[in-house]
Amino acid sequence: MQIFKPSKTNDSLFQKYETMLKEAMEAVHKRLHFSPFPEMPSPKEYGETAEADQKQKFESQLHGKFDRLKQSSDSWLTSDEESPYTSKALSLSYPTLSSADAYIKAAEAASQDWKRTDAKTRAGILIESLHRLKNCFFELAFATMHTTGQSYLMSFQASGPHAADRALEAIALGYQELTRFPDHVSWEKSAGKFTLKLEKYGTNIGRGLALAIGCSTFPTWNTMPGLYASLIAGNAVIVKPHPKSIYPIAVVVGIIQEVLSENGFDPNLVMLAVDKANQPITKQLAEHSAVRIIDFTGSNSFGTYIENLPNKIVFTEKAGINSVIIDSVDDLEAVAKNIAFSISLYSGQMCTAPQNIYVPESGIQTKDGVKSLADVEAAIVEATKGLVEHPKAGFAVAGAIQSTDTVERIKKAAGLGGKVLLESKPIANPEFAEARTQSPIIIEIADDKRDLIKGEMFGPIVFVVPTKDTAESIELAAASAREHGAISCSAYTKDPAVMEKIALQMAEAGTPVSFNLTGMVYVNQNAGFTDFHVTGGNPAGNASFTNPEFVVKRFIRVQSRVEG
Amino acid sequence: MQIFKPSKTNDSLFQKYETMLKEAMEAVHKRLHFSPFPEMPSPKEYGETAEADQKQKFESQLHGKFDRLKQSSDSWLTSDEESPYTSKALSLSYPTLSSADAYIKAAEAASQDWKRTDAKTRAGILIESLHRLKNCFFELAFATMHTTGQSYLMSFQASGPHAADRALEAIALGYQELTRFPDHVSWEKSAGKFTLKLEKYGTNIGRGLALAIGCSTFPTWNTMPGLYASLIAGNAVIVKPHPKSIYPIAVVVGIIQEVLSENGFDPNLVMLAVDKANQPITKQLAEHSAVRIIDFTGSNSFGTYIENLPNKIVFTEKAGINSVIIDSVDDLEAVAKNIAFSISLYSGQMCTAPQNIYVPESGIQTKDGVKSLADVEAAIVEATKGLVEHPKAGFAVAGAIQSTDTVERIKKAAGLGGKVLLESKPIANPEFAEARTQSPIIIEIADDKRDLIKGEMFGPIVFVVPTKDTAESIELAAASAREHGAISCSAYTKDPAVMEKIALQMAEAGTPVSFNLTGMVYVNQNAGFTDFHVTGGNPAGNASFTNPEFVVKRFIRVQSRVEG
Repeated sequence: MQIFKPSKTNDSLFQKYETMLKEAMEAVHKRLHFSPFPEMPSPKEYGETAEADQKQKFESQLHGKFDRLKQSSDSWLTSDEESPYTSKALSLSYPTLSSADAYIKAAEAASQDWKRTDAKTRAGILIESLHRLKNCFFELAFATMHTTGQSYLMSFQASGPHAADRALEAIALGYQELTRFPDHVSWEKSAGKFTLKLEKYGTNIGRGLALAIGCSTFPTWNTMPGLYASLIAGNAVIVKPHPKSIYPIAVVVGIIQEVLSENGFDPNLVMLAVDKANQPITKQLAEHSAVRIIDFTGSNSFGTYIENLPNKIVFTEKAGINSVIIDSVDDLEAVAKNIAFSISLYSGQMCTAPQNIYVPESGIQTKDGVKSLADVEAAIVEATKGLVEHPKAGFAVAGAIQSTDTVERIKKAAGLGGKVLLESKPIANPEFAEARTQSPIIIEIADDKRDLIKGEMFGPIVFVVPTKDTAESIELAAASAREHGAISCSAYTKDPAVMEKIALQMAEAGTPVSFNLTGMVYVNQNAGFTDFHVTGGNPAGNASFTNPEFVVKRFIRVQSRVEG
Repeated sequence: MQIFKPSKTNDSLFQKYETMLKEAMEAVHKRLHFSPFPEMPSPKEYGETAEADQKQKFESQLHGKFDRLKQSSDSWLTSDEESPYTSKALSLSYPTLSSADAYIKAAEAASQDWKRTDAKTRAGILIESLHRLKNCFFELAFATMHTTGQSYLMSFQASGPHAADRALEAIALGYQELTRFPDHVSWEKSAGKFTLKLEKYGTNIGRGLALAIGCSTFPTWNTMPGLYASLIAGNAVIVKPHPKSIYPIAVVVGIIQEVLSENGFDPNLVMLAVDKANQPITKQLAEHSAVRIIDFTGSNSFGTYIENLPNKIVFTEKAGINSVIIDSVDDLEAVAKNIAFSISLYSGQMCTAPQNIYVPESGIQTKDGVKSLADVEAAIVEATKGLVEHPKAGFAVAGAIQSTDTVERIKKAAGLGGKVLLESKPIANPEFAEARTQSPIIIEIADDKRDLIKGEMFGPIVFVVPTKDTAESIELAAASAREHGAISCSAYTKDPAVMEKIALQMAEAGTPVSFNLTGMVYVNQNAGFTDFHVTGGNPAGNASFTNPEFVVKRFIRVQSRVEG
């Protein structure tokens, strides 16, 4: 007998992907390199005509209806999306329902079968959706580029293979947790002359309807972990993308709906709920009593509102103020080049991009002797100029600026009262003459302007902060992380004791540190399976991709027992 | 190199208990019977003179200072504790500090070494404390009996071996989660012609100071899981017992402090913060910004206040309204006897005790044909009378009533408007003539009084609720669990389809069901390692002893990386 019989099981897809799932579960725990989806957009990996075909698909999708969703809808809405490369509207329209209630009713109805099926069925369907998504990675790249302003290569990698890695990681850890305890045990206990016997049956119950709120800069990478984690745990999900970055995640939702349909599940299990900036529906959805789980990426103010909603299980990634601590280095030029790349990459619009660079006012030790603060500043400025003014690398690294607010912020930064070490300028883009671009502005902050370093200056705005010594640098960086949040930290030191101190003090402020990066690894990078993204231990966010907490909070375990 | 070096490691105790810890980790996952601490107070297991020696220790402790704590203090406070068996004050005094701030400062200072030591050192010390506690199980039994009113046997089992099981379970799952990911990996990734290499180092960081708020009825069983889970995760803990039930947990805290001291750790890592009902300090502690984790067992109103405190990680067990659903049975008399025991055990003061018994008004199928509602009621009434009036079993099962409020509630219940099927009477206790006792009152609730079943009537107050049919019984029980909380459910049915329906509908309301109990297992019982206690899925509480969520929320994982 089995009192919790799953309904509608279908493990054919599970069997197809069982090996991959096992590898993924192992990778989650070994934390070595694992990347099942090739990260280079090479014809060899993805097919000779894939890029051209999908570019064509992207272009013919513009100015039209996104008709690939299988969800219930009653009208079409033309989105706010516009390309940071052309400043033109994408003129895309998406199917919508007329109210938050309508989305919630449809999603809840669709969840009935899903919540009663088993983890194998769910895992198979979800991994299949990632495999189909692979056939859209180039379209995703173009869609991401023309909504977020990311460069083409970053768009491909972040929205395609890297987002799929993160989703697979969430599926794998979710599957592991769902199957962690036996569904049936024959329990016996000796009680003197006789033996007590019970049959115990266990089942997992999803916490209920989930809402995944996306951001403007990483529409799939930041949304897919929570989306897939909620799904593997048995919950329906309403995806509420940022009004300016819908197209990429719409492709993802469409594919999941397609696989659900083909396997006999109601596609409304995942619904795309599109809105416009001047008619937002996020709060109506978030505050609805039926919504039990919320994943959020975005601003501090909205994130804090979400965190404070009563009776919700909330996973947030908000803003971080990331630090670079320079104590001592071998090769200053190599260090400066690495930092220049980090602050220029996607024009500082990554949540992991550095903002405040702490340098002792007495200078630093290098293999070429002591270099002064001015030397360090000059090296970073030169390396940054060299990168952004490079005719091939500059525009390819910096991409474009997603929001005009960011452009305004950069322009105002020069007047903040610091010493401008490097001015921000447009970066010419050979393909897109109208691209919204700005190179990094680098500003030395005087002692009396230190309040500036406590606020996130989203975009390519970098402060050099002269400090008494490295001890003060660490103190400022750790305090900033504790009080205002941080997602990354980069540090340079040749002294093992200083390294330990930085690592521990930043860890206690919930911040991982990357030490002595001078090569092709950058502090901004954070990879599925090996790196935890955000620790959940400071105000930059309360969740981590993908630690056990990220999945176990999405379902409960119930055991019943039968006297036998 | 290792950038996160633990401080003050000491794995000698870990080595002593490594086998036990492994067995415990295995038991957590197999969920079969595992009970490392013998549950019967037998001389063979605990020593010929243990009971007499510890009774003597208990008696000489009364009317005196509890001077076994090693924590900082500046004065003594005579507690509100009084025995439900004698109605006399225990006249015990405990060391206190003058303010919430003083406890917090002391605990935070003590946490510095603990948070930087390793999981092995912590696990060894914590398991050693349980082994020393074993030598106090009889004293714990007397202390529990004379604060909670539990019978002697229940006091021994619940506060001794069963509470130690639950603590060990939390240590084991905590240890497993803390050691789940490698502390060091040499990461490599091929990037075309060269290979990127990083050394990655991981560490766990406790979330911060914890507060464990105890209840009046199960001072160790309900407090030790959260206490030990916070400790294994690296956090200091302030234990705030119920003002009427301090002595048992004071013994536990004293022993942990002793083991900490012996192993070079500051005993203030665990502090007992005693207060009086008319001068409570719980809110001052709970609202303090330094308190990051709160474990709470107690009333709905206070529990909801705790759950709504901003920026806390909260684990609650509040009140549940537990149901019995009778659909069909073999042997009505055996069923009635099992139910009678469940409602009489510790006079209904267990969080798992049944309150509402749903019976179809048309009666039920039995092996002897259809029995009417009146037959079912009569059988339960007769079985209950037989048990509570039994000169040896009655007082031993029912124990005493912890609070005079409960006595008042029982007395008022007769006037609630239902049909009283069995009146509550005092139960004579041969040893304690003054014992505060009341046998169960059983009341049939008419349709127009059904609002009564929605409120918890703490104590031996039982409602029989006639329903149209079993479908309505399930509906009412599930709705009550969803809306008002439930921790247990007992159901009787011979129909597998009905069993499935009950199990699933109650599971979806976050409630485990015990089916067809007629022997020596009772719905009230919930054992470490095999049964999850509370699911976290309805208003009766947001946490579960001990699922992964119960431990993983108490620390974060931080990984740093070094280019090498």
